Amino acid sequence: MMRLHGYWRSGTSYRVRIALNFKGVTYEQVAHDLRRGDQKGQAYLALQPQGLVPALEADGQVLIQSPAILEWLEERYPDPPLLPQDAGGKAQVRAMAAIIGCDIHPLNNLRILKALKNDLGADQAAINNWIARWISDGFTALEAMTGVHGGVFLFGDGPTLADVYLVPQIYSAERFGVDLSPFPRLTAAATAARALPAFAAADPAVQQDADPG
Amino acid sequence: MMRLHGYWRSGTSYRVRIALNFKGVTYEQVAHDLRRGDQKGQAYLALQPQGLVPALEADGQVLIQSPAILEWLEERYPDPPLLPQDAGGKAQVRAMAAIIGCDIHPLNNLRILKALKNDLGADQAAINNWIARWISDGFTALEAMTGVHGGVFLFGDGPTLADVYLVPQIYSAERFGVDLSPFPRLTAAATAARALPAFAAADPAVQQDADPG
Repeated sequence: MMRLHGYWRSGTSYRVRIALNFKGVTYEQVAHDLRRGDQKGQAYLALQPQGLVPALEADGQVLIQSPAILEWLEERYPDPPLLPQDAGGKAQVRAMAAIIGCDIHPLNNLRILKALKNDLGADQAAINNWIARWISDGFTALEAMTGVHGGVFLFGDGPTLADVYLVPQIYSAERFGVDLSPFPRLTAAATAARALPAFAAADPAVQQDADPG
Repeated sequence: MMRLHGYWRSGTSYRVRIALNFKGVTYEQVAHDLRRGDQKGQAYLALQPQGLVPALEADGQVLIQSPAILEWLEERYPDPPLLPQDAGGKAQVRAMAAIIGCDIHPLNNLRILKALKNDLGADQAAINNWIARWISDGFTALEAMTGVHGGVFLFGDGPTLADVYLVPQIYSAERFGVDLSPFPRLTAAATAARALPAFAAADPAVQQDADPG
Protein backbone atom coordinates (compact mmCIF):
# COMPACT_ATOMS: atom_id res chain seq x y z
CA MET A 1 0.00 0.00 0.00
CA MET A 2 1.18 3.52 -0.71
CA ARG A 3 2.39 5.54 2.24
CA LEU A 4 1.99 9.31 2.35
CA HIS A 5 4.26 11.27 4.68
CA GLY A 6 2.56 14.52 5.52
CA TYR A 7 1.03 16.83 8.09
CA TRP A 8 -2.62 17.71 8.48
CA ARG A 9 -2.21 21.45 7.92
CA SER A 10 0.51 21.31 5.23
CA GLY A 11 -0.98 22.67 2.03
CA THR A 12 1.22 20.51 -0.18
CA SER A 13 0.25 17.35 1.74
CA TYR A 14 -3.39 18.41 1.43
CA ARG A 15 -2.99 18.59 -2.38
CA VAL A 16 -1.66 15.07 -2.56
CA ARG A 17 -4.41 13.70 -0.28
CA ILE A 18 -7.03 15.22 -2.58
CA ALA A 19 -5.49 13.67 -5.70
CA LEU A 20 -5.04 10.23 -4.10
CA ASN A 21 -8.67 10.28 -2.97
CA PHE A 22 -9.87 11.51 -6.35
CA LYS A 23 -8.01 8.70 -8.13
CA GLY A 24 -9.42 6.15 -5.70
CA VAL A 25 -5.96 5.07 -4.55
CA THR A 26 -5.70 3.40 -1.14
CA TYR A 27 -2.93 4.79 1.08
CA GLU A 28 -1.83 5.06 4.66
CA GLN A 29 -0.59 8.27 6.22
CA VAL A 30 2.48 8.92 8.34
CA ALA A 31 2.18 12.20 10.22
CA HIS A 32 5.22 14.42 10.89
CA ASP A 33 4.54 17.27 13.30
CA LEU A 34 6.12 20.27 11.57
CA ARG A 35 5.83 22.42 14.69
CA ARG A 36 8.07 19.96 16.57
CA GLY A 37 10.48 19.64 13.62
CA ASP A 38 9.79 15.91 13.16
CA GLN A 39 10.51 16.27 9.44
CA LYS A 40 14.15 17.16 10.16
CA GLY A 41 14.99 13.79 11.74
CA GLN A 42 17.64 11.58 10.09
CA ALA A 43 15.18 8.81 9.18
CA TYR A 44 12.91 11.18 7.29
CA LEU A 45 15.81 13.07 5.68
CA ALA A 46 16.87 9.78 4.10
CA LEU A 47 13.48 9.76 2.33
CA GLN A 48 13.19 13.50 1.64
CA PRO A 49 16.56 15.31 1.61
CA GLN A 50 14.95 18.75 2.07
CA GLY A 51 13.22 17.70 5.28
CA LEU A 52 9.89 18.86 3.86
CA VAL A 53 6.54 17.11 3.51
CA PRO A 54 5.02 15.47 1.56
CA ALA A 55 6.78 12.34 0.37
CA LEU A 56 4.98 9.38 -1.17
CA GLU A 57 6.32 5.84 -0.95
CA ALA A 58 4.88 4.06 -3.98
CA ASP A 59 5.93 1.26 -6.33
CA GLY A 60 9.20 0.83 -4.43
CA GLN A 61 10.16 4.47 -5.01
CA VAL A 62 10.10 7.56 -2.85
CA LEU A 63 8.43 10.44 -4.68
CA ILE A 64 8.90 13.98 -3.42
CA GLN A 65 7.70 17.49 -4.32
CA SER A 66 3.93 17.71 -4.71
CA PRO A 67 3.98 18.99 -8.34
CA ALA A 68 5.99 15.91 -9.35
CA ILE A 69 3.84 13.56 -7.25
CA LEU A 70 0.64 14.94 -8.78
CA GLU A 71 1.94 14.52 -12.34
CA TRP A 72 3.03 10.98 -11.50
CA LEU A 73 -0.43 10.16 -10.15
CA GLU A 74 -2.01 11.59 -13.29
CA GLU A 75 0.19 9.43 -15.51
CA ARG A 76 -0.12 6.28 -13.40
CA TYR A 77 -3.88 6.63 -12.70
CA PRO A 78 -5.26 8.57 -15.67
CA ASP A 79 -8.88 7.82 -14.85
CA PRO A 80 -10.62 9.90 -13.57
CA PRO A 81 -8.44 12.67 -15.08
CA LEU A 82 -7.29 15.84 -13.36
CA LEU A 83 -5.98 17.38 -16.60
CA PRO A 84 -7.87 18.19 -19.82
CA GLN A 85 -7.11 15.98 -22.83
CA ASP A 86 -5.77 18.69 -25.16
CA ALA A 87 -2.32 20.25 -24.82
CA GLY A 88 -3.70 23.80 -24.73
CA GLY A 89 -6.10 23.01 -21.91
CA LYS A 90 -3.37 21.20 -19.99
CA ALA A 91 -1.17 24.30 -20.28
CA GLN A 92 -3.89 26.56 -18.86
CA VAL A 93 -4.60 24.23 -15.93
CA ARG A 94 -0.90 23.80 -15.17
CA ALA A 95 -0.43 27.59 -15.32
CA MET A 96 -3.24 28.08 -12.79
CA ALA A 97 -1.64 25.44 -10.56
CA ALA A 98 1.78 27.07 -10.90
CA ILE A 99 0.47 30.51 -9.89
CA ILE A 100 -0.41 28.91 -6.56
CA GLY A 101 2.40 26.35 -6.45
CA CYS A 102 5.23 28.74 -7.34
CA ASP A 103 4.05 32.29 -6.72
CA ILE A 104 1.88 32.02 -3.61
CA HIS A 105 2.46 28.94 -1.47
CA PRO A 106 6.28 28.87 -1.27
CA LEU A 107 6.33 32.46 0.00
CA ASN A 108 4.01 31.72 2.89
CA ASN A 109 5.00 28.37 4.26
CA LEU A 110 6.24 27.77 7.76
CA ARG A 111 10.00 27.94 7.10
CA ILE A 112 9.63 31.32 5.36
CA LEU A 113 7.43 32.85 8.07
CA LYS A 114 9.99 31.71 10.65
CA ALA A 115 12.81 33.34 8.66
CA LEU A 116 10.87 36.61 8.36
CA LYS A 117 10.45 36.65 12.13
CA ASN A 118 13.82 35.33 13.27
CA ASP A 119 16.18 36.68 10.60
CA LEU A 120 14.47 39.92 9.58
CA GLY A 121 12.72 40.80 12.82
CA ALA A 122 9.26 41.04 11.25
CA ASP A 123 6.41 41.32 13.77
CA GLN A 124 3.09 39.49 13.39
CA ALA A 125 1.41 42.43 11.64
CA ALA A 126 4.18 42.59 9.03
CA ILE A 127 4.00 38.82 8.57
CA ASN A 128 0.22 38.93 8.10
CA ASN A 129 0.65 41.70 5.49
CA TRP A 130 3.27 39.59 3.71
CA ILE A 131 0.95 36.56 3.60
CA ALA A 132 -2.04 38.57 2.40
CA ARG A 133 -0.04 40.36 -0.26
CA TRP A 134 1.15 37.27 -2.15
CA ILE A 135 -2.19 35.50 -1.83
CA SER A 136 -4.02 38.58 -3.14
CA ASP A 137 -1.53 39.14 -5.99
CA GLY A 138 -1.80 35.55 -7.20
CA PHE A 139 -5.55 35.25 -6.62
CA THR A 140 -6.15 38.45 -8.63
CA ALA A 141 -4.49 36.85 -11.67
CA LEU A 142 -6.26 33.55 -11.04
CA GLU A 143 -9.64 35.27 -10.76
CA ALA A 144 -9.03 36.87 -14.20
CA MET A 145 -8.01 33.54 -15.75
CA THR A 146 -11.07 31.86 -14.25
CA GLY A 147 -13.22 34.50 -15.93
CA VAL A 148 -11.87 33.22 -19.25
CA HIS A 149 -11.55 29.49 -18.64
CA GLY A 150 -13.73 28.72 -15.63
CA GLY A 151 -17.13 27.12 -15.16
CA VAL A 152 -18.27 25.35 -12.03
CA PHE A 153 -14.57 24.85 -11.30
CA LEU A 154 -11.45 26.86 -12.17
CA PHE A 155 -11.20 25.29 -15.62
CA GLY A 156 -14.54 24.22 -17.05
CA ASP A 157 -17.20 22.22 -15.26
CA GLY A 158 -15.10 19.39 -13.83
CA PRO A 159 -12.40 19.49 -11.15
CA THR A 160 -8.78 19.67 -12.33
CA LEU A 161 -5.32 20.01 -10.84
CA ALA A 162 -6.04 23.74 -10.60
CA ASP A 163 -8.74 23.03 -8.00
CA VAL A 164 -6.43 20.58 -6.23
CA TYR A 165 -4.06 23.53 -5.68
CA LEU A 166 -6.81 26.06 -5.02
CA VAL A 167 -8.62 24.43 -2.10
CA PRO A 168 -5.58 24.17 0.22
CA GLN A 169 -4.61 27.75 -0.64
CA ILE A 170 -8.13 28.96 0.20
CA TYR A 171 -7.90 27.03 3.47
CA SER A 172 -4.63 28.83 4.26
CA ALA A 173 -6.09 32.22 3.28
CA GLU A 174 -9.04 31.66 5.60
CA ARG A 175 -6.72 30.61 8.40
CA PHE A 176 -4.74 33.83 8.11
CA GLY A 177 -7.85 35.99 7.77
CA VAL A 178 -7.17 37.15 4.20
CA ASP A 179 -10.09 39.03 2.63
CA LEU A 180 -11.46 36.79 -0.14
CA SER A 181 -14.35 39.03 -1.18
CA PRO A 182 -12.47 40.27 -4.32
CA PHE A 183 -12.34 36.67 -5.59
CA PRO A 184 -15.93 35.44 -6.05
CA ARG A 185 -15.06 32.98 -8.85
CA LEU A 186 -12.32 31.38 -6.77
CA THR A 187 -14.45 31.03 -3.65
CA ALA A 188 -17.32 29.58 -5.71
CA ALA A 189 -15.01 26.99 -7.31
CA ALA A 190 -13.51 26.12 -3.93
CA THR A 191 -16.98 25.64 -2.44
CA ALA A 192 -17.94 23.34 -5.31
CA ALA A 193 -14.73 21.36 -4.96
CA ARG A 194 -14.97 21.03 -1.18
CA ALA A 195 -18.39 19.44 -1.61
CA LEU A 196 -16.83 16.52 -3.51
CA PRO A 197 -16.01 13.47 -1.35
CA ALA A 198 -12.34 13.36 -2.48
CA PHE A 199 -11.78 16.94 -1.35
CA ALA A 200 -13.85 16.61 1.83
CA ALA A 201 -11.92 13.54 3.01
CA ALA A 202 -8.63 15.41 2.48
CA ASP A 203 -9.64 18.36 4.66
CA PRO A 204 -7.09 19.05 7.40
CA ALA A 205 -9.75 19.03 10.13
CA VAL A 206 -10.62 15.36 9.52
CA GLN A 207 -7.06 14.00 9.47
CA GLN A 208 -5.96 11.73 12.31
CA ASP A 209 -3.15 14.08 13.36
CA ALA A 210 -5.39 17.18 13.37
CA ASP A 211 -5.05 19.33 16.44
CA PRO A 212 -8.42 20.80 17.34
CA GLY A 213 -6.80 23.36 19.65
CA MET B 1 6.26 32.21 -35.48
CA MET B 2 6.19 31.84 -31.71
CA ARG B 3 6.80 34.96 -29.69
CA LEU B 4 8.49 34.79 -26.28
CA HIS B 5 7.94 37.69 -23.92
CA GLY B 6 10.84 37.79 -21.48
CA TYR B 7 13.83 39.58 -20.07
CA TRP B 8 17.47 38.68 -20.51
CA ARG B 9 18.22 38.17 -16.82
CA SER B 10 14.90 36.59 -15.80
CA GLY B 11 15.59 33.01 -14.71
CA THR B 12 12.18 31.78 -15.82
CA SER B 13 12.59 33.36 -19.28
CA TYR B 14 16.05 31.77 -19.48
CA ARG B 15 14.48 28.33 -18.82
CA VAL B 16 12.03 28.74 -21.68
CA ARG B 17 14.74 29.97 -24.07
CA ILE B 18 16.81 26.86 -23.32
CA ALA B 19 13.88 24.52 -24.00
CA LEU B 20 12.83 26.29 -27.21
CA ASN B 21 16.42 26.11 -28.48
CA PHE B 22 16.76 22.47 -27.42
CA LYS B 23 13.56 21.54 -29.27
CA GLY B 24 14.72 23.43 -32.36
CA VAL B 25 11.70 25.74 -32.31
CA THR B 26 12.05 29.08 -34.10
CA TYR B 27 10.83 32.06 -32.05
CA GLU B 28 11.15 35.78 -31.75
CA GLN B 29 11.69 37.56 -28.46
CA VAL B 30 9.93 40.59 -27.03
CA ALA B 31 11.94 42.15 -24.21
CA HIS B 32 10.27 43.74 -21.19
CA ASP B 33 12.65 45.68 -18.96
CA LEU B 34 11.70 44.50 -15.46
CA ARG B 35 13.75 47.27 -13.82
CA ARG B 36 11.57 49.87 -15.54
CA GLY B 37 8.36 47.93 -14.78
CA ASP B 38 7.53 47.39 -18.46
CA GLN B 39 5.77 44.14 -17.56
CA LYS B 40 3.13 46.04 -15.57
CA GLY B 41 1.75 47.92 -18.60
CA GLN B 42 -1.87 47.36 -19.63
CA ALA B 43 -0.97 45.76 -22.98
CA TYR B 44 1.20 43.13 -21.34
CA LEU B 45 -1.21 42.55 -18.44
CA ALA B 46 -3.81 41.55 -21.04
CA LEU B 47 -1.44 38.71 -22.04
CA GLN B 48 -0.13 37.85 -18.55
CA PRO B 49 -2.47 38.91 -15.73
CA GLN B 50 0.28 38.69 -13.09
CA GLY B 51 2.52 41.13 -14.93
CA LEU B 52 5.36 38.62 -14.83
CA VAL B 53 7.58 37.19 -17.56
CA PRO B 54 7.68 34.88 -19.44
CA ALA B 55 4.66 34.48 -21.69
CA LEU B 56 4.72 32.52 -24.92
CA GLU B 57 2.40 33.30 -27.80
CA ALA B 58 2.05 30.02 -29.69
CA ASP B 59 -0.62 28.28 -31.77
CA GLY B 60 -3.02 31.21 -31.23
CA GLN B 61 -2.80 30.86 -27.44
CA VAL B 62 -0.97 32.76 -24.76
CA LEU B 63 0.88 30.38 -22.45
CA ILE B 64 2.11 31.61 -19.09
CA GLN B 65 4.06 30.22 -16.12
CA SER B 66 7.32 28.55 -17.13
CA PRO B 67 6.52 25.12 -15.59
CA ALA B 68 3.34 24.97 -17.72
CA ILE B 69 5.12 26.28 -20.83
CA LEU B 70 7.91 23.70 -20.46
CA GLU B 71 5.43 20.82 -20.10
CA TRP B 72 3.53 22.10 -23.15
CA LEU B 73 6.74 22.20 -25.18
CA GLU B 74 7.58 18.66 -24.10
CA GLU B 75 4.15 17.40 -25.18
CA ARG B 76 4.06 19.39 -28.43
CA TYR B 77 7.70 18.73 -29.43
CA PRO B 78 8.59 15.41 -27.81
CA ASP B 79 11.80 14.96 -29.80
CA PRO B 80 14.44 15.51 -28.51
CA PRO B 81 12.98 14.75 -25.08
CA LEU B 82 13.64 16.64 -21.85
CA LEU B 83 11.93 14.00 -19.69
CA PRO B 84 12.79 10.30 -19.28
CA GLN B 85 10.36 7.82 -20.83
CA ASP B 86 9.34 6.00 -17.63
CA ALA B 87 6.95 7.45 -15.04
CA GLY B 88 9.41 6.95 -12.18
CA GLY B 89 12.21 8.79 -13.98
CA LYS B 90 9.84 11.59 -14.93
CA ALA B 91 8.87 11.98 -11.26
CA GLN B 92 12.50 12.31 -10.17
CA VAL B 93 13.31 14.89 -12.87
CA ARG B 94 10.18 16.88 -12.10
CA ALA B 95 11.01 16.77 -8.37
CA MET B 96 14.48 18.18 -9.08
CA ALA B 97 12.93 20.89 -11.22
CA ALA B 98 10.37 21.70 -8.52
CA ILE B 99 13.04 22.09 -5.82
CA ILE B 100 14.37 24.98 -7.91
CA GLY B 101 11.07 26.12 -9.39
CA CYS B 102 9.10 26.16 -6.12
CA ASP B 103 11.56 26.23 -3.23
CA ILE B 104 14.42 28.43 -4.51
CA HIS B 105 13.57 30.74 -7.39
CA PRO B 106 10.25 32.22 -6.18
CA LEU B 107 11.85 33.33 -2.93
CA ASN B 108 14.61 35.26 -4.65
CA ASN B 109 13.03 37.00 -7.60
CA LEU B 110 12.93 40.74 -8.06
CA ARG B 111 9.47 41.40 -6.58
CA ILE B 112 10.37 39.53 -3.38
CA LEU B 113 13.71 41.26 -2.91
CA LYS B 114 11.95 44.60 -3.36
CA ALA B 115 9.37 43.64 -0.72
CA LEU B 116 12.09 42.59 1.73
CA LYS B 117 13.74 46.00 1.29
CA ASN B 118 10.70 48.26 1.06
CA ASP B 119 8.20 46.52 3.37
CA LEU B 120 10.47 44.87 5.92
CA GLY B 121 13.40 47.27 5.88
CA ALA B 122 16.00 44.63 5.09
CA ASP B 123 19.42 45.97 4.17
CA GLN B 124 21.59 44.55 1.39
CA ALA B 125 23.51 42.23 3.74
CA ALA B 126 20.25 40.73 5.05
CA ILE B 127 18.95 40.35 1.49
CA ASN B 128 22.15 38.61 0.40
CA ASN B 129 21.86 36.22 3.36
CA TRP B 130 18.23 35.52 2.41
CA ILE B 131 19.20 34.72 -1.19
CA ALA B 132 22.11 32.50 -0.19
CA ARG B 133 20.07 30.63 2.39
CA TRP B 134 17.35 29.37 0.05
CA ILE B 135 19.79 28.58 -2.75
CA SER B 136 22.00 26.62 -0.35
CA ASP B 137 19.06 24.78 1.25
CA GLY B 138 17.66 23.68 -2.11
CA PHE B 139 21.03 22.92 -3.68
CA THR B 140 22.00 20.74 -0.69
CA ALA B 141 19.00 18.50 -1.37
CA LEU B 142 19.60 18.59 -5.12
CA GLU B 143 23.25 17.63 -4.66
CA ALA B 144 22.13 14.57 -2.64
CA MET B 145 19.56 13.57 -5.29
CA THR B 146 22.18 13.98 -8.02
CA GLY B 147 24.40 11.58 -6.12
CA VAL B 148 21.67 8.95 -6.57
CA HIS B 149 20.31 9.77 -10.02
CA GLY B 150 22.96 11.87 -11.75
CA GLY B 151 25.56 11.20 -14.41
CA VAL B 152 27.01 13.81 -16.73
CA PHE B 153 23.82 15.78 -16.02
CA LEU B 154 21.48 15.96 -13.01
CA PHE B 155 19.59 12.88 -14.10
CA GLY B 156 21.65 10.42 -16.10
CA ASP B 157 23.89 11.26 -19.02
CA GLY B 158 21.56 13.40 -21.09
CA PRO B 159 20.12 16.84 -20.34
CA THR B 160 16.60 16.97 -18.86
CA LEU B 161 14.19 19.55 -17.52
CA ALA B 162 16.18 19.40 -14.28
CA ASP B 163 19.18 20.93 -16.07
CA VAL B 164 16.90 23.47 -17.77
CA TYR B 165 16.02 24.70 -14.27
CA LEU B 166 19.54 24.30 -12.86
CA VAL B 167 21.52 26.47 -15.24
CA PRO B 168 19.53 29.70 -14.70
CA GLN B 169 19.64 29.10 -10.93
CA ILE B 170 23.41 28.64 -11.04
CA TYR B 171 23.64 31.86 -13.07
CA SER B 172 21.66 33.65 -10.38
CA ALA B 173 23.77 32.13 -7.59
CA GLU B 174 26.95 33.30 -9.30
CA ARG B 175 25.49 36.77 -9.77
CA PHE B 176 24.76 37.07 -6.05
CA GLY B 177 28.11 35.61 -5.04
CA VAL B 178 26.73 32.46 -3.40
CA ASP B 179 29.41 29.91 -2.47
CA LEU B 180 28.91 26.93 -4.79
CA SER B 181 31.87 24.88 -3.55
CA PRO B 182 29.62 22.53 -1.49
CA PHE B 183 27.83 21.50 -4.71
CA PRO B 184 30.41 19.89 -7.03
CA ARG B 185 27.87 17.65 -8.79
CA LEU B 186 25.60 20.59 -9.57
CA THR B 187 28.39 22.80 -10.87
CA ALA B 188 29.73 19.93 -13.03
CA ALA B 189 26.28 19.30 -14.52
CA ALA B 190 25.79 23.01 -15.15
CA THR B 191 29.16 23.24 -16.88
CA ALA B 192 28.26 20.29 -19.11
CA ALA B 193 24.87 21.80 -19.92
CA ARG B 194 26.23 25.27 -20.66
CA ALA B 195 28.54 23.72 -23.24
CA LEU B 196 25.54 22.58 -25.30
CA PRO B 197 24.49 25.00 -28.07
CA ALA B 198 20.86 25.20 -26.86
CA PHE B 199 21.96 26.33 -23.42
CA ALA B 200 24.74 28.62 -24.68
CA ALA B 201 22.39 30.47 -27.04
CA ALA B 202 19.96 31.06 -24.14
CA ASP B 203 22.59 32.66 -21.89
CA PRO B 204 21.51 36.09 -20.64
CA ALA B 205 24.73 37.72 -21.80
CA VAL B 206 24.04 36.98 -25.47
CA GLN B 207 20.42 38.20 -25.55
CA GLN B 208 19.62 41.32 -27.57
CA ASP B 209 18.32 43.19 -24.53
CA ALA B 210 21.35 42.32 -22.37
CA ASP B 211 22.82 45.27 -20.51
CA PRO B 212 26.60 44.90 -20.30
CA GLY B 213 26.79 47.53 -17.52
